[in-house]
Amino acid sequence: MTFLQNNKLSEMANAIRFLSADAIEKSKSGHPGMPLGMADVATVLFTKFMKINPSEPRWFDRDRFVLSAGHGSMLMYSLLYLLGYKDINIDDLRNFRQLGAKTAGHPEYGHLAGIDMTTGPLGQGISSAVGMALAERIINAKFGDDLCAHYTYVINGDGCLMEGISEEAISLAGHLRLNKLIVLWDNNNITIDGTVDKANSTDQIKRFQAVGWNTIEIDGHNYEQIEKAIAQAQKSDKPTLIACKTKIGFGAPTKCGTSKCHGSPLGAEELAAMRQNLNWNYEPFEVPEDILNAWREAGKRNEEAYKAWDKKAQAAGKEFLDYINDRLPKNWDKDLNELKKKSIAEGTKVATRKASQLCLQAIVPNIPQIVGGSADLAASNLTFVDGMKTVTREDYNGNNIMYGIREHAMGAIMNGLALHGGAIPYGGTFFVFSDYMRPAMRLAALMGLRVVYVLTHDSIGVGEDGPTHQPIEHLASYRCMPNILTFRPCDVVETAEAWQLALEEEHTPSILALTRQGLPMLRDSAELNMTARGGYIIRGDKKKRQATLIATGSEVSLAVAARDKLKEEGIEVAVVSMPCTELFDKQTIDYQEEILGTAPRIAIEAASKFGWEKYVGLHGDIIGMDGFGASGPAEQLYDYFGITLEEVVDSVKNLLKK
Amino acid sequence: MTFLQNNKLSEMANAIRFLSADAIEKSKSGHPGMPLGMADVATVLFTKFMKINPSEPRWFDRDRFVLSAGHGSMLMYSLLYLLGYKDINIDDLRNFRQLGAKTAGHPEYGHLAGIDMTTGPLGQGISSAVGMALAERIINAKFGDDLCAHYTYVINGDGCLMEGISEEAISLAGHLRLNKLIVLWDNNNITIDGTVDKANSTDQIKRFQAVGWNTIEIDGHNYEQIEKAIAQAQKSDKPTLIACKTKIGFGAPTKCGTSKCHGSPLGAEELAAMRQNLNWNYEPFEVPEDILNAWREAGKRNEEAYKAWDKKAQAAGKEFLDYINDRLPKNWDKDLNELKKKSIAEGTKVATRKASQLCLQAIVPNIPQIVGGSADLAASNLTFVDGMKTVTREDYNGNNIMYGIREHAMGAIMNGLALHGGAIPYGGTFFVFSDYMRPAMRLAALMGLRVVYVLTHDSIGVGEDGPTHQPIEHLASYRCMPNILTFRPCDVVETAEAWQLALEEEHTPSILALTRQGLPMLRDSAELNMTARGGYIIRGDKKKRQATLIATGSEVSLAVAARDKLKEEGIEVAVVSMPCTELFDKQTIDYQEEILGTAPRIAIEAASKFGWEKYVGLHGDIIGMDGFGASGPAEQLYDYFGITLEEVVDSVKNLLKK
Repeated sequence: MTFLQNNKLSEMANAIRFLSADAIEKSKSGHPGMPLGMADVATVLFTKFMKINPSEPRWFDRDRFVLSAGHGSMLMYSLLYLLGYKDINIDDLRNFRQLGAKTAGHPEYGHLAGIDMTTGPLGQGISSAVGMALAERIINAKFGDDLCAHYTYVINGDGCLMEGISEEAISLAGHLRLNKLIVLWDNNNITIDGTVDKANSTDQIKRFQAVGWNTIEIDGHNYEQIEKAIAQAQKSDKPTLIACKTKIGFGAPTKCGTSKCHGSPLGAEELAAMRQNLNWNYEPFEVPEDILNAWREAGKRNEEAYKAWDKKAQAAGKEFLDYINDRLPKNWDKDLNELKKKSIAEGTKVATRKASQLCLQAIVPNIPQIVGGSADLAASNLTFVDGMKTVTREDYNGNNIMYGIREHAMGAIMNGLALHGGAIPYGGTFFVFSDYMRPAMRLAALMGLRVVYVLTHDSIGVGEDGPTHQPIEHLASYRCMPNILTFRPCDVVETAEAWQLALEEEHTPSILALTRQGLPMLRDSAELNMTARGGYIIRGDKKKRQATLIATGSEVSLAVAARDKLKEEGIEVAVVSMPCTELFDKQTIDYQEEILGTAPRIAIEAASKFGWEKYVGLHGDIIGMDGFGASGPAEQLYDYFGITLEEVVDSVKNLLKK
Repeated sequence: MTFLQNNKLSEMANAIRFLSADAIEKSKSGHPGMPLGMADVATVLFTKFMKINPSEPRWFDRDRFVLSAGHGSMLMYSLLYLLGYKDINIDDLRNFRQLGAKTAGHPEYGHLAGIDMTTGPLGQGISSAVGMALAERIINAKFGDDLCAHYTYVINGDGCLMEGISEEAISLAGHLRLNKLIVLWDNNNITIDGTVDKANSTDQIKRFQAVGWNTIEIDGHNYEQIEKAIAQAQKSDKPTLIACKTKIGFGAPTKCGTSKCHGSPLGAEELAAMRQNLNWNYEPFEVPEDILNAWREAGKRNEEAYKAWDKKAQAAGKEFLDYINDRLPKNWDKDLNELKKKSIAEGTKVATRKASQLCLQAIVPNIPQIVGGSADLAASNLTFVDGMKTVTREDYNGNNIMYGIREHAMGAIMNGLALHGGAIPYGGTFFVFSDYMRPAMRLAALMGLRVVYVLTHDSIGVGEDGPTHQPIEHLASYRCMPNILTFRPCDVVETAEAWQLALEEEHTPSILALTRQGLPMLRDSAELNMTARGGYIIRGDKKKRQATLIATGSEVSLAVAARDKLKEEGIEVAVVSMPCTELFDKQTIDYQEEILGTAPRIAIEAASKFGWEKYVGLHGDIIGMDGFGASGPAEQLYDYFGITLEEVVDSVKNLLKK
C-alpha cells in the first residue's frame, strides 16, 4: 500500500477531522475530541488493514469494527462516507443527530450499513467485540480459513477500560487466546471530568498483560508506528492492546488536550482556527477531490478478495450459507415436539430448569449455530447437554462457553456472537444475577438480537439461599423493558413452547425464567403452541366462570389446585396461564377479553405485584410479594409470604362477596 | 499474642470447621468448602488482628470485616459464636438456614450483630469494603487517630475477583491509596463449574499490582505465614492483597480440593471421616471447653482498647457522636427551606438537575457527613457545589469523590460508606446508566441504607444522544424494587422536598430522577412537604373535575398546560403531581381516593407505560413510551412520540365521550 504516503495520509485524516467537527458544529451537539484524536489511527486502519467492501457491507468474512467509544460516532460516519458506503451521503453528515437521520447521536446497528454494533454505553463495545472474535474462531474451526478468517478491531477510550465489564471480557479473551482481536486504545489521558489521573492510576499495559494479552505502545499520530503495530498485532498468538498515545481534539488550537473538546462543538472561532492550523482551506463538508478519491480507492481495495470469498462461499453450498445467515434447519424442532408429546404421556414432573435442559437436549443437536454456556452455574442452570463440547484455547470447534463468573461480559459476548452471525447464543445464570448483565440485555433489546437468557432459580422457591438470591422485582423489571420477551413457563410443554418462540424470534431477545423446584405437568395437549398467545385458559370454562385466576410459572399449579378446591365447593373458576405478558399484549383486544373474561380477576405470582393491575384492574386482587424474600426452606417461604392455596381460595371468595 | 501456639490455633480453626460442617449437614443446605478452607486464615485474623469487641458489636472504631464470599456464611457465624457475640448461641447455629433464624443462608446486615454487610452477590463485598476503607480515611482525616483508625478486612474467593465490579473498586482503592484495606483471597483454584483454569488465566498478583496494590503470596494453612503477611500488610502504604493458597474443603478426606464440597453438605460419611482425619472426637455442635475458652479470650482482647476509645469519644463530645451516628444537625434544612421560598418568589425555571444542584448548595455546607460524587459526570449531574473538596490520596479530608467511569463500584462504595457510618453518600450518573449499578442498588435497598442516587437526563428529554442514553423502563424498574424510593420532581420545590425526604429516610435508599431540560416553577406554596404524600393535586378543583391528569417530573408542566387549554374550552380537569408513587401507595386509601377521584384518569410520563394501570385502571389512558427513544432534538422527540399537549387534550376528550 505504498501509494499512500504520509502527507496523503495526513490529509485523509484531516478529512475525517473536518467532516466530524463540521457536522458536530452544525448539529450544535456531539463529541469532537475523539474523532479528531483518533483520525490518524483510523486512517491507517481503514486504508491499510480493514478487510471490508463498502459495496457489500454485510460480507460475512469482513473484518469487524467496533467503535466502543460510541460518542465518537462522527469518526464512524466520516469513515463510512469517505470509504464510499452507499447507505450514507454528505447530506446524512449534515443531518447528524437530527430526528430520523441515519447519523444518530451514537452509532446504531441496523440504522446505517457499516455499523457493526450499537455503542454508547461504555464498556459494551470492547466486550461484545470479544464475542465477535470468539464467533470468528468457532466458525473458522468448523469451516476453515477459506471461508472464515478475519480480525475484529476495536477503538475505545479510557471509559471503556474503567468499566468493570471490560475486565471480565478481556480476561476471558486472554484466557481463550482470541488472537484476532485487536484493541486500539485512544490513550489521551482525558475524561469528562478532567485528566484521567484524577480518578485512575491503572497501569493498563500491565493490566492487559496480567490477563494474557500482547501489548504495544505507540504514538497515535505517527503513521509508521500505527502501521507497524497493527501488522505486529495481526501476527500475535494473543489478543493485542495497542495503546495509542493521542491528543484529544488534535488540531484544535486551544481546546486540544483538554476535556473541553470532549462533548461539545468546538465553536465557530476554534473551528476556523483549526482550519488555519491544519491548513485545511475548504468549506464545511467539502472534501477535495484527490482526498476523496484516495479514500474511495482505499474502499475498493478488497473487492477482489470479496469476489474470491463469495465464490468459495457459493461453492460451499446451502449448508454453509444457512449457517452463516443463522437460518434454522428445517424441522429443527421435531425432537422438541416429540418431547412435548412424551412429557404429556408420561406426566413428567420436573423443575422448569430441568425441563429447559430436556428441551436443550432436543434442540442443540439440531441447530449447528447454537453457542450455549453459563456464568459458572452450568450444573444449576442446566445449560449443558450431552454431545456439547466446550470451546477452549486449544480447540475452538465447540458449542459451549464456560463464561466464568462474568455475567455482564456473558451478556455482551452473547451480543457479539449474535451480531457476528453464524452463532445463536444462549447463556445461563441465576435470575437474580441477571441484574449484573442488564446493560448488555438492554443493548440486545435495542439492537434486536436473538439472544436467549436461561435464568433459573426464579423466585422465593430458591429457598435457603435467601433474599440476596431470590428474584422479586426481576419479572416486572424486564416486562417494562422494550423489545424483550419474558417467558415464565409452568411445565415441560410451556418450556418447550418458550424455547421454540425464543429461537424463532430473530429480532428480539428472550428470557426464560425457570424454577429451581419441581412442578407438575399441567398441559394435556401440545398441538398448538399456546405460549405464542402469551396467555390462555388452561383450566375451567370461559362461560361458567365466576372468577379468573391468572398465574405464571410455578404459580399456575397453585391456581389449578385452588380451582379444584373451589369447584368442590361449587364455585366455578377459570385459570389463565400467562407465560408471556408481552405476547399476550400483542393479541387482539377480542382475544384478550375472551381470555380474561368479565368475572373478578386475581393474579398470582411469587414476585413483585407491580404491573398486574394491567390485567386485574383496580378491583381485582394480586397475590404476590410486597418486599424482599427470606432464607428458609422454599415451601415454608410460600406459606410465610401467603402465596398459598388457602390465600387464593379466600381471595376468590372475598371478591365474590363484593 | 504468644499464648496462642500453633497446635492451639489448629484446634481453634477446627472448631470453625466442624461447627460449619455440622450446621450445613443439619440444614441439608449450604457451602462448606470455604469455611473449611479459610478456617486457618480466619483464626489468625480474628485472634491476633481484628480489633473488635463482641460486647460492643457496633463500636465505631472497630476493624471492619466483609465476607465477600458470602456463601461461606457459616465461617462468619462460627466465628461470631466462638468469639462470644451475645446475639448468637449454639442453637442459632443448629438453626442455620431455617426460616426466621439469625443464621440466614447468606450473612444479612441487621439480622445478627457482628455482620458488617449483607453479602452473597459476588463482587459486592470487596467493592463495598473499599467504601468502608474510604470512610475510615475521611473520618480519620477529620478527627485523627485517636477517634478513627482501623482496618477493613475482606475474605473473598475467585468469584469476587472475576466479577467486573472488583476491577472498578480495586482500581479506585489503589488510586486513592487506601492502605488500611487488606484483602485475603481464598486462592483455592475452584469454582462451581470446576477448576478456575477452565475459565480464567488471570495473573491476579500482576493484576493487583497494575492498579497500585501491595501483594503478598502465602500458604493459607501456615499460621506463621498468615500472621507475618497480615502484619506486613498493616504497614503498607498501599492496599494489600494477600493471596492465600488454600485447599477448598480442607480436612474432608475425599472432597477436599474439588468443587464437590463447594455448595452441598459433605454427607454423613465424609463428615465422619473428616472427624477421624482431623482427630476431632466431639459430637456435632460440641466445642471442647479449652478451645471455646481460648476463642472467648481472644474475643475479649480489645475490651480495654474499646474503653479507652469510648472515653475519648465521649470527651470529643456531641458533635463527634452525632457525626459518627449519622445524625443530621438540627435545622440542617433551613437553607433548603429558604431556597424553596426564594424559588417560588422568583419563579425559578431550571432543569431539575440544576434544581438539585441548588439544593445541594443549600445542603452540603449543613451536613458534615455528606460524601458526594459522580461517575465522571459531575458537570452533567451537577453534583459538585461550591465549598466541596475532592478527596485525594494526598488529602482525605474532603467530601467529594471522583469515582471515575465506574458506576457499579460507585454504587457499592456508597453502600460501604453508609455501612461504615459517619458518611451520608450521594452519587451521580445518567439515569440510563443506573443499570450498571443496579446490583449494588438492590443491596442498598435490601440492607436499608441511606444512599441517594442523583440520576440525571431522565427521559427522551436527553435529546440527541439517542436511545442508548434515554431511559425508558428505568422508572418502572425501580418502582417494582422493594424498599427504594423513586422521586421524579417537577420543579425546584419538589426537588428540594425530595432531597429532604431522601436524607431524612434513614433506612431506605432514594433515587432522584432529574431532567436535562429546563422546567417551569409550578408550585406556589412550600409550607407543606407535598412530595411526602407521594402525589397531590397541584392544579384544579377536586370536586368540579371531569377528568384527572396524573403526571411526574417534566410532564407535570405539560399536564398543567393541557388543563389550562381544556379550561378554556370549558372542561374542568385536575392535575395530580406524583413525584413518588411509592410514598403515595403508603397513604391511606381515603387520601388516595380523594386525590385520584372518580373521574376518568390519564397518566402522563415520558417513559414506559408499564405500571400506570395501578392508578388509571383498565378504562383510563396512559400517555407514554411504547418502545425505545431516538436521536434528535428533545422537543421534536416529544412530538414524535406523541407526548404533547394536543395528545393529552384529545385523550381527555375521548375519555369524556365514552
